Amino acid sequence: MSEPDDILAANAAYYAAFASADFGHMSRIWADDDVTCVHPGWPVLVGRPAILESYRNILGNPNQDQIEPHNAIAMIYGDEGRVICVEWIGAAAFALAATNWFRRVDGAWRMVHHQASPIAAAVEHASAQPAGRRLN
Amino acid sequence: MSEPDDILAANAAYYAAFASADFGHMSRIWADDDVTCVHPGWPVLVGRPAILESYRNILGNPNQDQIEPHNAIAMIYGDEGRVICVEWIGAAAFALAATNWFRRVDGAWRMVHHQASPIAAAVEHASAQPAGRRLN
Repeated sequence: MSEPDDILAANAAYYAAFASADFGHMSRIWADDDVTCVHPGWPVLVGRPAILESYRNILGNPNQDQIEPHNAIAMIYGDEGRVICVEWIGAAAFALAATNWFRRVDGAWRMVHHQASPIAAAVEHASAQPAGRRLN
Repeated sequence: MSEPDDILAANAAYYAAFASADFGHMSRIWADDDVTCVHPGWPVLVGRPAILESYRNILGNPNQDQIEPHNAIAMIYGDEGRVICVEWIGAAAFALAATNWFRRVDGAWRMVHHQASPIAAAVEHASAQPAGRRLN
């Protein structure tokens, strides 16, 4: 595969791990160190233990909304690259702008940073929901 | 200065350009290419023209809230590094989790990515505000 295909495949694997609630897969996607994560509405999480703990809780939540990635764009610079995409949450009741940053480690793209933030129009669409629901 | 001091100084310069509404300074802080930006509530902006246009509008807005960075943490990996901080908006009526990603170009840290997203507790605190105000 070409470089952009590779990193886009790594991005798709992240969302596949989400869709299948596969914590082991999610844990292998994240790099071993130098990692940060900002879930929507959360303060930043720094380091693998805090980040994996958050995914264990999110993936273990039976009421977790489905997340569908759309419009993924890859930008690669040396051994780092980011994928920007739009996350449709819960059948697109609202949308997030997501940045997924990867680093090439032993030939594989591993995630070093994830941040997803609400896009205003979609947040307004969901404004009848309680605030906690809107941001989780 | 040490490496972390350098990149923290670049991060401080970003907020200083904001505070002084200095578009020329802001434009020099951003790298020449490979740049992305997600303002709170906005979809992703890709490329220098779209990003600088957004800052021209934001810095030219006389009603733009003041932004104060707090709790900055630097993480450097080779010639790239990120600073994670909390942005207090409008005398801390609410707060954003911000990621500012820099690349070393000719010895200077230039910004390649910015993303700021509302932190839930602060958003709830500001929930009496109209949605557009809350996210801009």
